[in-house]
Amino acid sequence: MNKDSGQRIKFAPGEALRGKGATAAEGFFAAGVSCGVRRAGELDLGLLFSGGPCVAAGAFTRNAFRGAPVGVTEEAVADGTLRAVAVNSGNANAATGAGGVEDARRMQTAAAEALGVEVGEVAVASTGVIGERLPVEKVEAGILDAAGRLGAGDDAFAEAILTTDTRPKQASATVRVAGKTVTVGGTAKGSGMIHPNMGTMLAFLTTDASVEREYLNRTFLAAVERSFNRVTVDGDTSPSDLALVLANGASGNEPLDADHPDAPAFAAAVEKVCVELARAIARDGEGATKLVTVVVRGAADEKSAAALAKSVAGSSLVKAAVFGEDANWGRALNALGYSGVAFDVGKAAIRFGEVEVFRGGEPVPHETAEANAQLSGEEVVIEVELGEGESEATAWGCDLTYGYVEINGSYRT
Amino acid sequence: MNKDSGQRIKFAPGEALRGKGATAAEGFFAAGVSCGVRRAGELDLGLLFSGGPCVAAGAFTRNAFRGAPVGVTEEAVADGTLRAVAVNSGNANAATGAGGVEDARRMQTAAAEALGVEVGEVAVASTGVIGERLPVEKVEAGILDAAGRLGAGDDAFAEAILTTDTRPKQASATVRVAGKTVTVGGTAKGSGMIHPNMGTMLAFLTTDASVEREYLNRTFLAAVERSFNRVTVDGDTSPSDLALVLANGASGNEPLDADHPDAPAFAAAVEKVCVELARAIARDGEGATKLVTVVVRGAADEKSAAALAKSVAGSSLVKAAVFGEDANWGRALNALGYSGVAFDVGKAAIRFGEVEVFRGGEPVPHETAEANAQLSGEEVVIEVELGEGESEATAWGCDLTYGYVEINGSYRT
Repeated sequence: MNKDSGQRIKFAPGEALRGKGATAAEGFFAAGVSCGVRRAGELDLGLLFSGGPCVAAGAFTRNAFRGAPVGVTEEAVADGTLRAVAVNSGNANAATGAGGVEDARRMQTAAAEALGVEVGEVAVASTGVIGERLPVEKVEAGILDAAGRLGAGDDAFAEAILTTDTRPKQASATVRVAGKTVTVGGTAKGSGMIHPNMGTMLAFLTTDASVEREYLNRTFLAAVERSFNRVTVDGDTSPSDLALVLANGASGNEPLDADHPDAPAFAAAVEKVCVELARAIARDGEGATKLVTVVVRGAADEKSAAALAKSVAGSSLVKAAVFGEDANWGRALNALGYSGVAFDVGKAAIRFGEVEVFRGGEPVPHETAEANAQLSGEEVVIEVELGEGESEATAWGCDLTYGYVEINGSYRT
Repeated sequence: MNKDSGQRIKFAPGEALRGKGATAAEGFFAAGVSCGVRRAGELDLGLLFSGGPCVAAGAFTRNAFRGAPVGVTEEAVADGTLRAVAVNSGNANAATGAGGVEDARRMQTAAAEALGVEVGEVAVASTGVIGERLPVEKVEAGILDAAGRLGAGDDAFAEAILTTDTRPKQASATVRVAGKTVTVGGTAKGSGMIHPNMGTMLAFLTTDASVEREYLNRTFLAAVERSFNRVTVDGDTSPSDLALVLANGASGNEPLDADHPDAPAFAAAVEKVCVELARAIARDGEGATKLVTVVVRGAADEKSAAALAKSVAGSSLVKAAVFGEDANWGRALNALGYSGVAFDVGKAAIRFGEVEVFRGGEPVPHETAEANAQLSGEEVVIEVELGEGESEATAWGCDLTYGYVEINGSYRT
């Protein structure tokens, strides 16, 4: 196999040198094409590629039922290296039996051959309808097509991985590390079937930092925990979810490990990109009109704070109240109560935006209209103070709307 | 205090001797009146009374945030006896601090005085809006009014305890025990904020059987586990939930205990009434158009089967698909996968009504239209066979509709 990668890469003239998401870091190239899995003309095949070898890490769905590509990709990243990612939308290649695994491997092989890399350097992902075999010939042809169109912009890639999303999701951050500027970028998709612990979401982060493998893995998993694992749209998790990070070292920095003085700055950049993408996923929740941010402070530990915040963000009744711009804080209190975390209601306080509504076991007198007005914007913030300790956590969700019902009552038809 | 109970009871002439729910058993009387907690003319105060002393048992919300009446009632039933229940709708008396507890005690005392029984023989319950003080004078006046109207029909009682419910919920069963016919009846409410482990639901069972206290408690809790704890409407549990059973022994049977040969028949009657009420609650889920019954068979144990069934019945995506009459079985498989129960997808099978859609890790070829047709009626049955063991469980839910969003986006306005 030809390992002299990139020989098929042609750059579109005038294209920006860096993209806004997965190609924001140096040395990463992407493309998105239409291969016919979705309706004619809709982008449905994305390819992401690094000009040089990368260390890599991944986080995978915890659903007991997993799509075929998840296992194939987990195997590929097990050695801590990757060089390319091939993704299709429109079909999740899940509940497709042994034939589905074969299809995922064909997809992986097609990308390896098109890019001149080893099969084990390619991650694959699929998102869309469950239980139908992937039209793998179309995907193979699409991969070949995309390999010839790789460029530094990732807008087409960002669009090709979407399903019911209404917007592409890209984010990036730069940080100085040992005297060099390194970039962390990412592109994600996710709209429905989103819940803590990876809903139907895909996220592909890249960085031109030089990073030691084990440190990258630990940093990435911590960032995933504080971002994608704190998003809930509808309480469902999916069989297809995965998040990957690839670091190609193109910025030439002194390699980062856990002991490097700039390690915290790098970790913060990774977390920032993950959080920005997570917020974009929540904001684009199926049918959503509002992003809901729930902050829990004063918890005994971060795990408790996160469970409480996710419980409020995930409550159907809270979500419907936000849609109706009804500051029904009793529902928030209620969701705290069934989170499974013990706390003293008498010490808790709840704030909707600027208005404190509950403290010390009873309502704080306030104008209902003023509290409701805190829910009128596109972003709603619910803050909880527990008075139990010093830890805090944030979770993100969205409102529950007629649109959610419409989208999911007729997805396949 | 005057313990010669019943002196205020007047029976309406021509009224049926037995009701369809909580007064189906001999010696129980009920009434429902309008006391002004809800809008003028809407029934909002229910009173249930036994002519003689009862052994009793209760199950209570597991929400860490509990309404004031829950604690008061738990205390009342702790000695295993009760004689009356006073319930209001329109206000949950929850998140109301120390004043709320005082209000619940005033409600309890008012009923005890009106009925001439001990304060500790009265259970209280409140359901409705959270976080507003109960207008307790109105409730006290309503209790006096209701005490003067007690009768053997429980239709007004059944209506007075409703909130967003669209229908009263009553059920009864008769069974021969030691040569006597005994009746078990019950009246319940519940529509939104319903989830396994007691959502906003209230259930009041009565029986004229003579039952040993500890056996009644065990039998009742087992029936609650297999009925109310397997209903999910929206994933939210409430601070106000409780289920009670009162047994007054009016049928004169030889007392039942766990060793009595007719104990299983009695337990089956209790479970039957609980299941019938649980199904009625699911069918009347906020905005629901369909009852969804999920049966999981072939599980390693009943607890696993119940967790799997509840996960499918509770999935927003499954619920929206049922609303859309779209036999999107991938979502059901997905919900099994994130239930937290380990199982082998390769051994599982899924059936929508009469149509098997998935077996052995892949789809069973079928006509989509035929599968969708299984979802066209008012009751949808999803069956799962795991192939892991011999245990089974059933859970009940409903579809997710525009109506749910409408009701909960504007409940207080």
